[in-house]
Amino acid sequence: MAKTNPGRFFEDYTLGQVIEHAVPRTVGAGERALYHALYPARHALYSSDEFARASGLPAAPLDDLAAFHVVFGKTVPDVSLNAVANLGYGEGRWLKPVYAGDTLRSSSEVIGLKQNSNGKTGVVYVRTRGTNQRDEVVMEYVRWVMVRKRDVDAPAPEAVVPELAKVMDPKDLVIPEGLDFTNYDFAQAGETHRWGDYEIGETIDHVDGVTLEEAEHMMATRLWQNTAKVHFDATFRPDGQRLIYGGHIISLARALSFNGLANAQMIVGLNGGAHANPAFSGLTVKAWSEVLDKAETSAPGVGAIRLRLVATRGGAPFELRGDDGKYLPDVLLDLDYWALMPV
Amino acid sequence: MAKTNPGRFFEDYTLGQVIEHAVPRTVGAGERALYHALYPARHALYSSDEFARASGLPAAPLDDLAAFHVVFGKTVPDVSLNAVANLGYGEGRWLKPVYAGDTLRSSSEVIGLKQNSNGKTGVVYVRTRGTNQRDEVVMEYVRWVMVRKRDVDAPAPEAVVPELAKVMDPKDLVIPEGLDFTNYDFAQAGETHRWGDYEIGETIDHVDGVTLEEAEHMMATRLWQNTAKVHFDATFRPDGQRLIYGGHIISLARALSFNGLANAQMIVGLNGGAHANPAFSGLTVKAWSEVLDKAETSAPGVGAIRLRLVATRGGAPFELRGDDGKYLPDVLLDLDYWALMPV
Amino acid sequence: MAKTNPGRFFEDYTLGQVIEHAVPRTVGAGERALYHALYPARHALYSSDEFARASGLPAAPLDDLAAFHVVFGKTVPDVSLNAVANLGYGEGRWLKPVYAGDTLRSSSEVIGLKQNSNGKTGVVYVRTRGTNQRDEVVMEYVRWVMVRKRDVDAPAPEAVVPELAKVMDPKDLVIPEGLDFTNYDFAQAGETHRWGDYEIGETIDHVDGVTLEEAEHMMATRLWQNTAKVHFDATFRPDGQRLIYGGHIISLARALSFNGLANAQMIVGLNGGAHANPAFSGLTVKAWSEVLDKAETSAPGVGAIRLRLVATRGGAPFELRGDDGKYLPDVLLDLDYWALMPV
Repeated sequence: MAKTNPGRFFEDYTLGQVIEHAVPRTVGAGERALYHALYPARHALYSSDEFARASGLPAAPLDDLAAFHVVFGKTVPDVSLNAVANLGYGEGRWLKPVYAGDTLRSSSEVIGLKQNSNGKTGVVYVRTRGTNQRDEVVMEYVRWVMVRKRDVDAPAPEAVVPELAKVMDPKDLVIPEGLDFTNYDFAQAGETHRWGDYEIGETIDHVDGVTLEEAEHMMATRLWQNTAKVHFDATFRPDGQRLIYGGHIISLARALSFNGLANAQMIVGLNGGAHANPAFSGLTVKAWSEVLDKAETSAPGVGAIRLRLVATRGGAPFELRGDDGKYLPDVLLDLDYWALMPV
Repeated sequence: MAKTNPGRFFEDYTLGQVIEHAVPRTVGAGERALYHALYPARHALYSSDEFARASGLPAAPLDDLAAFHVVFGKTVPDVSLNAVANLGYGEGRWLKPVYAGDTLRSSSEVIGLKQNSNGKTGVVYVRTRGTNQRDEVVMEYVRWVMVRKRDVDAPAPEAVVPELAKVMDPKDLVIPEGLDFTNYDFAQAGETHRWGDYEIGETIDHVDGVTLEEAEHMMATRLWQNTAKVHFDATFRPDGQRLIYGGHIISLARALSFNGLANAQMIVGLNGGAHANPAFSGLTVKAWSEVLDKAETSAPGVGAIRLRLVATRGGAPFELRGDDGKYLPDVLLDLDYWALMPV
Repeated sequence: MAKTNPGRFFEDYTLGQVIEHAVPRTVGAGERALYHALYPARHALYSSDEFARASGLPAAPLDDLAAFHVVFGKTVPDVSLNAVANLGYGEGRWLKPVYAGDTLRSSSEVIGLKQNSNGKTGVVYVRTRGTNQRDEVVMEYVRWVMVRKRDVDAPAPEAVVPELAKVMDPKDLVIPEGLDFTNYDFAQAGETHRWGDYEIGETIDHVDGVTLEEAEHMMATRLWQNTAKVHFDATFRPDGQRLIYGGHIISLARALSFNGLANAQMIVGLNGGAHANPAFSGLTVKAWSEVLDKAETSAPGVGAIRLRLVATRGGAPFELRGDDGKYLPDVLLDLDYWALMPV
């Protein structure tokens, strides 16, 4: 019997199935430092234990996106090894901050299945949950991927497409216990703009750019124990290019968004996301944001802001789609998320 | 007097001489994270403190090969600065796991000397020991290198070639105190194959590949404070290439072997190893393994497995040597080691 | 109102102004490991907690230059975003070691202003201080940069040029509390040469070289949260090259100087420094040092040594300036600092 993991094919998934993903991972000071080395991350709550304490948390948590990457990375061998395309994300929520010393696990429940009309592939919908060593769910999100069938003659399962919220209701966002921005230090955070200063519809060009490097995206992707061959093996694609993990672009764009959104401290909801075009080493990534919505929260001094975060490989900011409704070729990422800011 | 280290030449070694190597090094959470960023390492015992505790250890140790690299790196300025070739390893044993906060030192005893017939070089055999801050030996191994003479007219020492075991007797392997695999969680570890599922002679193609990058191999090699110029200075070799530290290939191949050997958790013995061909940036490394032997151990639920681990730069798996008995040009590494698995 | 940081222009600075820089940063085991991965750093006091304890410190501090980079990085958005040139450093002192868990902040006081005769730019002098979470100043230094005016017609401020010491008086150097080199272990430190073995005027060729990589200098510079576009964005300069952060060259040269100056353990004073020529990926950096002065200190077994550290991109060692008095094209860095050694 072959001992290596062939990955799952479309017919290996059944509705309601729960997959426990390997490998548990303890995170700490090393992952935090590497996150700062790999991305121009500067949000004060994740940079300074003192700033986090002044905001009511016990210490600076691991960056929310790093927690996402760790949870996501574990799903790759079970969910996307035979994926043709990563179609979308939704209904993401961060439920508990992750601290140094925490050990994360992931599991995914199959919540939808739909064979494509060509009979060769199908779409699998999973709800993935990350849990810590106390069995607390630290985050959850839905992801759907197109997966190849092993046997094109295998019968199609009954089609079930889950109804997903287009946007997380701000009432459902979970604010970390104790979070309090009433004594927020704007000077130390880096910008004076508070929640009240942002208007729905406002756009922000984050100005800075970062040129992608093979060693950097590979180290980042490996750090999250993501095993997809296409990111690491230059002989895998016919063109000899290593496709960059979409999450690398998410983290890069989020870090770039500090310049204009320094006070959008915590990510608590992921409404949706699309990797509009593939990214490769050598491209220079820039980012812009659009304020999509705002909401009050029950936590002292804390407001919620819904942001579109777009990463591009150049091109003018604020341009997203062409006349045909399709993403422009320079657009790499279109992400829709909720963050917490001082009001 | 020149203050820089010229390295030792063949006539500077004497039988029985013990060399204390500089520089002591404290390891911790940073080295662990970097190991996960530089190699696709996923063995659960080294990834999760919780998994390690469930296996009877106080926490996840530093990867066994990282411990080896730290111990090895210190020997370079004293042993291999003027080496012409790294000829082999043998009689390696891991005696104590290394944990965050431990400080490692190295010393080497000269156990063999043999001048070559050309009179210009000689072979030096050293037994190197790594110790922690409690003076406990954490690992030991024998290495032999060909070293230049400073003065070709210097008299040859009496030739002494140590008799080395071709294979470590499994009875001599040291199992970490408390190690217990009776409640081993195969789902979290990533594969269901246990010790009993592997047959002597069985071969495993680890399938995945990683393309080598200058920044990655240099960061890895520097992290172990290995100072050999040839790894870092593109002007050192006439061809302008930086030779990749052989240990980088060992760690890469071992990490790739997770796919098929996820439960070969701990390395406890190094029977031998050869860097069959040099490795350079841009090559894509793949790996395959062969089960060479199996043995029971005294620890609960723990079996020992002897593995050949081969790293290649492409080419078909399971091909090692040509008709002339020499390693094929695509073979980078041929390593023979003992690992511990759940029975 | 644009929400991104446009940086300060010359007319935005006023004499006596104190700028509190964002973002506070907690450092620890991750930053330490990354420093060892990015630079061939081997000084024992920073590598081993045990060695540091034997020298009277509670643990191995963060490398002095890493502390400098963290403090410096914070100043970039406020001081050098619109800088035309980084003109010099001086009057630098390390006042308290930085340990794992410390959180660093920076502030700068404007101590001099002088508009250039072209009316388009001016020189700004700032004294920057880094403080820890107990409000203790951990280091301070003066830096002067040439900054663009926003409006060439803005009136020139009264010219004030601070008088800076060309060299820090060794009496003003601060020796970490408890530092004691009387039981210094030269074998573990890596070299036998003590303070008494170095003569004023002596020069040391550090022999080793490191070829610069984009991924490495970007990771290093990002780790210190330095945001200058020119280091990260290949589209920023017309020639498509990323200018390497001068501090990367300082750390690289200092690490290379281990070979010949292994016992110059702690940097306590920065007398001056110039980035003589720009550095780019692909160059191979070498280093040499010159002993400029020596002084006794009040700490047991501890002497001070004043060193010139020169980084080059090749060329013969010990050559610094041409007949015209200008730095030779191969010289990258000319740094003048005080270090502490065992006597």
